[in-house]
Amino acid sequence: MRRHHHWLAVLVLGGLAMTAASDEGMWLPSDPPRELLRKKYEFDLTDAWMKRAMLGSVRFNNGGSGGFVSAGGLIVTNHHIAADALQKLGTPQRDLYRDGFLAADRAGELKCPDLELNVLQEILDVTAEVNAAVKPEMKAAEAAAARRAVMGKVEKESLDKTGLRSDVVTLYNGGLYHLYRYKKYTDVRLVFAPERAVAGFGGDVDNFEFPRMNLDVAFFRAYENGEPAKTPHFFTWSETGPAENDLVFVTGHPGTTNRLETLAKLKHRRDLTLPYTLYRLRTLEAALTQFSEQGPEQRRQAATDLHRVANARKAFSGQLQGLLDPTVLGTTPFTGKHGQETALSMQLLDLAPGSGRYQITYRATLETIAAVQTKFATFEKEYGLLETGHGFFTELFGIARHCVRMGDELPKPAADRLREYRDSNLDSLKFQLYSPAPLYPELERVKLQASLTFLAENLGGDHSTVKLVLAGKNPAARADELIAGTKLLDPAERKRLVEGGKAAVAASTDPLVVLAAAIDPEARRLRKRYEEEVEEPERQAYGEIARLRFQAFGRGVAPDATFTLRLAFGTVKGYEVGGEALPFHTTFGGAFEKHARLGGREPFDLPKRWLDGKAKLDPATPFNFVSTADTIGGNSGSPVLNRAGELVGINFDRNRHGLVRNFVYTDVQARHIAVHSRAVLEALRKLYPAAALVKELTGK
Amino acid sequence: MRRHHHWLAVLVLGGLAMTAASDEGMWLPSDPPRELLRKKYEFDLTDAWMKRAMLGSVRFNNGGSGGFVSAGGLIVTNHHIAADALQKLGTPQRDLYRDGFLAADRAGELKCPDLELNVLQEILDVTAEVNAAVKPEMKAAEAAAARRAVMGKVEKESLDKTGLRSDVVTLYNGGLYHLYRYKKYTDVRLVFAPERAVAGFGGDVDNFEFPRMNLDVAFFRAYENGEPAKTPHFFTWSETGPAENDLVFVTGHPGTTNRLETLAKLKHRRDLTLPYTLYRLRTLEAALTQFSEQGPEQRRQAATDLHRVANARKAFSGQLQGLLDPTVLGTTPFTGKHGQETALSMQLLDLAPGSGRYQITYRATLETIAAVQTKFATFEKEYGLLETGHGFFTELFGIARHCVRMGDELPKPAADRLREYRDSNLDSLKFQLYSPAPLYPELERVKLQASLTFLAENLGGDHSTVKLVLAGKNPAARADELIAGTKLLDPAERKRLVEGGKAAVAASTDPLVVLAAAIDPEARRLRKRYEEEVEEPERQAYGEIARLRFQAFGRGVAPDATFTLRLAFGTVKGYEVGGEALPFHTTFGGAFEKHARLGGREPFDLPKRWLDGKAKLDPATPFNFVSTADTIGGNSGSPVLNRAGELVGINFDRNRHGLVRNFVYTDVQARHIAVHSRAVLEALRKLYPAAALVKELTGK
Repeated sequence: MRRHHHWLAVLVLGGLAMTAASDEGMWLPSDPPRELLRKKYEFDLTDAWMKRAMLGSVRFNNGGSGGFVSAGGLIVTNHHIAADALQKLGTPQRDLYRDGFLAADRAGELKCPDLELNVLQEILDVTAEVNAAVKPEMKAAEAAAARRAVMGKVEKESLDKTGLRSDVVTLYNGGLYHLYRYKKYTDVRLVFAPERAVAGFGGDVDNFEFPRMNLDVAFFRAYENGEPAKTPHFFTWSETGPAENDLVFVTGHPGTTNRLETLAKLKHRRDLTLPYTLYRLRTLEAALTQFSEQGPEQRRQAATDLHRVANARKAFSGQLQGLLDPTVLGTTPFTGKHGQETALSMQLLDLAPGSGRYQITYRATLETIAAVQTKFATFEKEYGLLETGHGFFTELFGIARHCVRMGDELPKPAADRLREYRDSNLDSLKFQLYSPAPLYPELERVKLQASLTFLAENLGGDHSTVKLVLAGKNPAARADELIAGTKLLDPAERKRLVEGGKAAVAASTDPLVVLAAAIDPEARRLRKRYEEEVEEPERQAYGEIARLRFQAFGRGVAPDATFTLRLAFGTVKGYEVGGEALPFHTTFGGAFEKHARLGGREPFDLPKRWLDGKAKLDPATPFNFVSTADTIGGNSGSPVLNRAGELVGINFDRNRHGLVRNFVYTDVQARHIAVHSRAVLEALRKLYPAAALVKELTGK
Repeated sequence: MRRHHHWLAVLVLGGLAMTAASDEGMWLPSDPPRELLRKKYEFDLTDAWMKRAMLGSVRFNNGGSGGFVSAGGLIVTNHHIAADALQKLGTPQRDLYRDGFLAADRAGELKCPDLELNVLQEILDVTAEVNAAVKPEMKAAEAAAARRAVMGKVEKESLDKTGLRSDVVTLYNGGLYHLYRYKKYTDVRLVFAPERAVAGFGGDVDNFEFPRMNLDVAFFRAYENGEPAKTPHFFTWSETGPAENDLVFVTGHPGTTNRLETLAKLKHRRDLTLPYTLYRLRTLEAALTQFSEQGPEQRRQAATDLHRVANARKAFSGQLQGLLDPTVLGTTPFTGKHGQETALSMQLLDLAPGSGRYQITYRATLETIAAVQTKFATFEKEYGLLETGHGFFTELFGIARHCVRMGDELPKPAADRLREYRDSNLDSLKFQLYSPAPLYPELERVKLQASLTFLAENLGGDHSTVKLVLAGKNPAARADELIAGTKLLDPAERKRLVEGGKAAVAASTDPLVVLAAAIDPEARRLRKRYEEEVEEPERQAYGEIARLRFQAFGRGVAPDATFTLRLAFGTVKGYEVGGEALPFHTTFGGAFEKHARLGGREPFDLPKRWLDGKAKLDPATPFNFVSTADTIGGNSGSPVLNRAGELVGINFDRNRHGLVRNFVYTDVQARHIAVHSRAVLEALRKLYPAAALVKELTGK
C-alpha cells in the first residue's frame, strides 16, 4: 500500500510539475506566478510591470474587461462588451449597435446612461478577520449571517476610509477573503465602435470558433468632473502586434470557473443545472428570434438580448459536452476530476502517515458537498425561477423587486440586509436602477411571456406559486396585463418608490410591484434555504478543501475565477484540427474571401464600408490571433500584452475546445482569441475617418 | 338534490344544444351531421355529395391532405405538405423547395421518391369483432395482445380480399373500431409548386396568424401503371371562390385532437408532456438554425426540418397557453374541462336514478385514467427518448431500428408482431425504408448530436442507457462516429439487411445498427410498459367513457381526430382582435403592402417573379380567407368546398386562437385559414407559364 501511495504521490507531484509547466492559471495580481514565468519563459515579472497591468486594467461592470490606452482616459474593449451601451444609446432612427459610431471630437463623445467602470487600486487580505467572525460552533444560518455581517462591515469601513468602492472577494471558494478597492467611473462616453457585421462577422456560427475574422473592438473614454480622466497608467498600443511563439499576458476579469469544484458538484451541474439552463436559454432564444423576425425595429430592439442569450447557450452547450466527456470527469489521474480527487486523497494520506486525518477530513468534506447537491436538487428550479428571476425575464421585474426589497431592507442595520443592499453597493445599485436607458414594452412583454411560460412548464399549472403569479390567466394574457399596466418604464417612478420606502411600495397598484411583493415571501424563503443549506455549507467545505490543498500543494494552483482582476499568460501559437494545421492568426484577406464564398449572406456580410474600401486595405494584415493563455467569459475586452507591457491585442473569445476550461485547463487545441493590434490600426487608418483616435493611440 | 340535478341537466342539454348549433366537429364520413346541416344551414347533405367528397379526398401519408381537381389524377395540396417531396427532389444546384417548380408537360412531371397517397374507398364497423376478442377477464397485457391480434387479422383478411390498404381505426379513444379501405398511389409526380417565399410569406412570424397572404399550394399527379390515374371523382375548381357568410366544408385528415381526454390527462399534458416536448423542439430548432446559418447549402438541406420543428414548436406553445388558461381546464360548465366532467357526471346520475351506477362507473374510470398518468410520469421521458426515438433525431437511426426489428419481427406470426410490422403495412413501410431520397451526413450529424445531448440532459450522464448509447464519448464525438461509420445512407444496404434478416443484422458492424440493436431490449421493455400500463388501460377507460357518453348524449359529439377522413363545416367570416375587425379575406395588394412596409426582408420577401409581375395582377384578388370550420394539423391541404361541392379553397393553417382547438372548439376568434381558389387561378394565369394547368383546372 505504502509503495502504491508513493507511486501516486510521485505522479501527483509530476502532475503538478506538469501543471506548473503549462500555461494554466488566472492568477491573483497580488500573487502572480513569478517563478513559473522565470522558469518557463525567462521573464522577470517586476513590481512595476504588475502595477501598470493592474492600474491600466478596467472592469466593465456589465460583464467584461478593458484597458486604458492613453493618458487621457481612452479605453479599449470589445464591441460585444460595448453592445449594451450601444443598444441603450441607439434609437429607431440611429442603430448604433448595427451601424457603429465615431465621435467627431471630444464634444461628440456620447455619455452612456448606466455604464460603471472599476479600476482596481489595492488588495488587502482579510481572511483572518472574516474567519474570526465565524465561530466553529455556529449553525449554518448563524455562520452565514455572521460572515455576511463581517464582510459588510469591512467593506463599509474601507469605503468610509478611502472613498473607494470596496468589495470583499471570496477566493478558493472560501479559502481566502480579500478586500478589493476600486476607483469608480460613472461618466463614461462612447468614442468609437465599428459596424456589428464586422465586429461579429460570422455571428453565432463563428462564435467560439477559429479561424475568426472579427473587429470586435470599441473605444470609450472615462471622464471625471466633466473632463477626460487623467490615466497615467495605460498600455502603449503596439504597431506590430505579436509574432508566433511570443509570450503574451491577458489582464482582465474572468467571471466564473469551476475547477476546484468536486466531482459531485460537477455531476450536479451536468445532470441538473446545465440541462435546466439550456432549456431556459433555448426557450428565450426561440422567443427573441421570433420577435426579431417581425420587422426591422423589433430586430433592433432585441439584438443585444438575442446575442447575449445565444452566446450563453453556446457556451453552456460546450460546458455540457465537456462534462459528458469521460476524460473530464473520469478517473484519469490528472485530467479527470475523479482521478484528481483520488490523487489528492492519496497525497493527503502521505502527509499524515498513520493517522490519515487529512484524508479522512477530505473524504468527509467531499461527502458533505455531495449531500448538499442532493438537497439542492429538491428546490433548485424554484430557487432559480423565483429568486434568481428566471421566471420573470424582464428588467422591469428586477426593477420592481428592487423597489419592493429596498423598502424592506434599507431601514435595517447594514449587517442584517440582503448582501446586494450593503452600504458599499448602494450607489452602484441606484446608478443602474434609475438608468434612463430605454426599455421597449413589446420586447419586455415577449420576454416576460416566454419566462412566465417557462415558470409554468417547470413547476406545473397547479403549483401554488404559478397560480399566484398567473392570477387566473395564461402566461400570454398575464404578460400583456403586467407590461401594459406598469409605470416602471419611467425612472422617476422607480425613484419615487425607492425614496418613498415601504409605504410608497405598499400604496402602489403597479401590477409588477404588486406581483414582486406578492411572491417575495416565497422568494426570500428560497433564498434563505439556498444560503443556509447550499451556499454556506459549500463555502465551509471548500474552505476546508482549500486548506487541505494548501497543505498538499501550497499555492501552486490559482483560485477559481471571481470576476476580479487576474493575470493569465501563454504562447501565441496555432493548433491542429482534424489533421489540419491552423495558423496562429487570420488576415483581412480571409474575411473578404469568406464573405465572397458564402455569398455575403448574414452573418457573413461584411459592411459596405469594408466592401467599398477593400482596395485600400492590406489583405495580409493580421486580423485575429490565438494563444494558450487561460481565459474565460468576463475576459472579453481584456488587454493582451507583450513582455514590454504593450498592448498587442484585445481578447474577445475562446475557441470551442476552450469551452471545457470552466472545468479543466487544456492547451492541446484550446485557445483564447484576440483582435490583433495591427488590425485595429489598419482599419482605423484606412476605413474610418479616425485620425484623431489613431494619433491618440500611437502619437502619430 | 334532485332539483339541482335537473337544473344541471337542463344546462347540459342546453350546452349540447349550443354545441349542436355551433360548427364543432370533425365528422366521420360514414356518419355525417346531416340533421345539423339541415337545421342550421338548410343544407341537404346527399349521399352523392358525400361520396364525391370521400372519393375526391386524398391523404398524404407524410401528414397532410389534398384533393383531386381533374379527372386525370391532378391533386392540389399545400406547398408545405409538398415540402418533403420538394426537398427530396432538390439538389445543391436546383433548390425546388425554395425556387418552386412547373412541369413543362406531362413528361416533365417529377416522380417523388417515397410519397404514398391514400384515397378512402370504404368504411366497415368492426367494433363487435374487436371487442369480442378482448375478454373482460383478461389482464391488460393479454387484452392489448388480443386486440392487436384481432386488428391485424381483420386488416390482413381485408387486404387479401380486396387488395386495398386496410387499416383498423380506433375511434372515440376505443369506443368504436372501423375498418378503412384505401386505394393507394405510390407513383406520384410533382406538377407545380410556387416559390417558398410566397407559399410561406411571413414565415414563422405569420405562421398561425391572420391576416395572412400565402400561396400555400402545390399540385401533384397520381399515376397508375405509368399513366395518369383516372379519377372521375374530383372537385371542380371554383372561379369565384367563397363569399362572406357562405357555408363551406373541409374534407381532409385531421391528425390529433384531445377533446375527449379527461382533466387528469390534460393536466398531465400541461405539466409533463408539453414542457418536455417544447424543451425538445426548442433544442432541435436551435441546432437546426445554427446549422442553417453556416451557408447556403446547409440552409437548403435543413430548410424543411427547420420548418417542421418551428411549426410544431409554435403549435405546441399554443396548446400549452390553452391548457394554462383557466377557462379551458376550469370549472365553467360547458367550456371548462372540469365543468364538462361535472356536468356529464350529473347527467349520468339522472340516467340511473337511485342506483347511480353510471355515475359511479364514470368516476371510477376518471380515477383510473388519473392513476395511469401518475404511473406514466415515472417512465414517460425514457419512453419518448428511447422508444419514440427523441434521443436519436435522425432518419438514419429510424432506418437502423427498422432493420434490426424486422429481423426479429418478420419471422413471428403476424398477430405477435409489433403493430407497425403487420402484414397490411409492410409494403408501405418498405416503400419508405428503401427510399432513394438523399440524406445529408452533416445535417444528420448535427441532428443526432443535438438529440443525443438532449438524451443525456434528460436522463443524466450516469444513467445506464446514456452510458450505453454514448459508449465513453460525449454526444458530439459519438454523433461524429456514428454518422461517419454508417452505411445506411445507401438504400441498397438497408435492403440487404432487411432481406438478410436477423443473421445479416447480427453480422453487421454498422455502428448505427449495432447501437439500435444494443438499446433494443430496453426500448422494447419501455414500449411494453407503455402499451400495457398506459395505452391499454386508457383505451379500456376511454371505451367505457365513450359508452357512457353515448348513453347520455347519443352520437352528438364527433370522435377525436385520428388522421382519417373527416368532414368539417363552417361559415366564412372574419372576427375581431383587440377591437379591430378583421375581414374574412386578404388580398394580393395586402401582400405587396406588407413586403414594402417591412423592407422586403426575410421572411417578408416576395419572390422576384411577384415583384416583377406586380402590375399584371389584380391587387383586389382575394388571397386567403377564414371560416369557422373545425380543423387541426393534418388538415393542411384539405379541399374547402361550397354547397355545390366545388373547390373554393385549400386549407393550410389555423390562426393562433384556434390552437386551443386540440382541447376545445371555439369560434369566437378561432378560424382555419385557406388559400382562395381565385388567388391560385390569378397567380397561375398572370405570373407562371401554366396555361396547361389552368386549362386542366377550369377547362379554359
